[in-house]
Amino acid sequence: MTAKGKVYLIGAGPGAVDLMTLRAERMLRTADAVVYDRLVSPEILALAPADARMVPVGKAPKCHTVPQDRINEILYELASQGFTVARLKGGDPLIFGRGSEEAAYLRAGGIEVEYAPGITAAQGMAAATGVPLTHRGLATGVRYVTGHRARDAKLDLDWQSLADENTTLVIYMGAANIAEIALNLMREGLPGSLPVLAVAHATTPREARHVSRLDRIGTDMAAQPMPAPVLFVLGHVVSLCHNAPLPLDLPQVMAGE
Amino acid sequence: MTAKGKVYLIGAGPGAVDLMTLRAERMLRTADAVVYDRLVSPEILALAPADARMVPVGKAPKCHTVPQDRINEILYELASQGFTVARLKGGDPLIFGRGSEEAAYLRAGGIEVEYAPGITAAQGMAAATGVPLTHRGLATGVRYVTGHRARDAKLDLDWQSLADENTTLVIYMGAANIAEIALNLMREGLPGSLPVLAVAHATTPREARHVSRLDRIGTDMAAQPMPAPVLFVLGHVVSLCHNAPLPLDLPQVMAGE
Repeated sequence: MTAKGKVYLIGAGPGAVDLMTLRAERMLRTADAVVYDRLVSPEILALAPADARMVPVGKAPKCHTVPQDRINEILYELASQGFTVARLKGGDPLIFGRGSEEAAYLRAGGIEVEYAPGITAAQGMAAATGVPLTHRGLATGVRYVTGHRARDAKLDLDWQSLADENTTLVIYMGAANIAEIALNLMREGLPGSLPVLAVAHATTPREARHVSRLDRIGTDMAAQPMPAPVLFVLGHVVSLCHNAPLPLDLPQVMAGE
Repeated sequence: MTAKGKVYLIGAGPGAVDLMTLRAERMLRTADAVVYDRLVSPEILALAPADARMVPVGKAPKCHTVPQDRINEILYELASQGFTVARLKGGDPLIFGRGSEEAAYLRAGGIEVEYAPGITAAQGMAAATGVPLTHRGLATGVRYVTGHRARDAKLDLDWQSLADENTTLVIYMGAANIAEIALNLMREGLPGSLPVLAVAHATTPREARHVSRLDRIGTDMAAQPMPAPVLFVLGHVVSLCHNAPLPLDLPQVMAGE
């Protein structure tokens, strides 16, 4: 028998408590220690046991409070002491969550790891706004990319591949670079009139939305920045957005939903 | 006051009951009628109230038991009679789920619609196998497409855009056409050695896995077909698969997880 604990790599979902999975909730309620990112909502943290050790390792944009190497060590140290550790991340731990890096580190050290997937911010956006990620005649597929770049690095994206009008493009961490992203996509042939939805804190009481177009989103965001993190959805599916004013020049045939 | 009911468009997730969201479970437990697809697992259907009216509208490959137009009508009729209707779909209703088509039809008829997003089969696969959808150095993004085509139609996919080695490509409904898909992607430059994971019924006791490569997956599936529906994951992230034998010729540096 080993005294070692284990680590649950948990997707907390987009924000609303009831968009956690049953597995995520169960794992969180049985944790001795909770290691959590800044994006996890306070309503979700409140589900942790009252006597659980709470360890924030939040990442803010351009300000990694705790470096990834140190997060790995913290998880390992807690599990080695016998704790059942809930590692809580926004969205899904295996989509832009670095969950597989943490798992590799922990498994190499003999620590057992279990996953609970989470609803992504894109899926939360879809459920909250009615904008589907695919829709017959408007989008045959969906793609998630990050619009973030390391300090002083160039945006390393395959613009030609991304400029596919039939695929809904969801951009995570793109607020700082959305003007450049839009310009590159238009250079590769995407129309300036392509609908764009910017959403912050989807599914929470703090949700904010802005509907725009590819040729205006850069200036819109410069004029009126939204609270981070902002998710951008590019594609004709945005024309199905309900509860949001439609901008001019959208194909009105789709505005009836 | 209106006597009209409403429709919950619910993502049942990839199969395991505990991968439903809290919202999905709550909606299902309060339903008067449950309209469900073939892909929803019996364990999940068992959560419906004992006296709920159960309406299967299951779609099997190449055999749409109930046409989409008729499904729309069934939902409308039930809600019009005052029922609270749970419309249960595998995965997420807004990713290849036609949830937005059903919502548009119902809203046009004055029926209230609410969504519960669901964990996708791809996310369930990731949590079950340890294969992340993105991973630093292996995949900067992820893309979902369907490999299905309407009868006698050509596969209508942008092969050049899809042949991006840095993006994890997840193919839904591709079992019948995987050989042709692989061939087209290799023509556009993807290496034959690119790892491919085929998964059926991920997260359930019926889960089956097969690890292969892009130049062999077509013959593998012809020789040993897997139970539908099969999900294909193409990309270097597959080299991180645990609990599955790694094929020869994979980059061994990544095999240690």
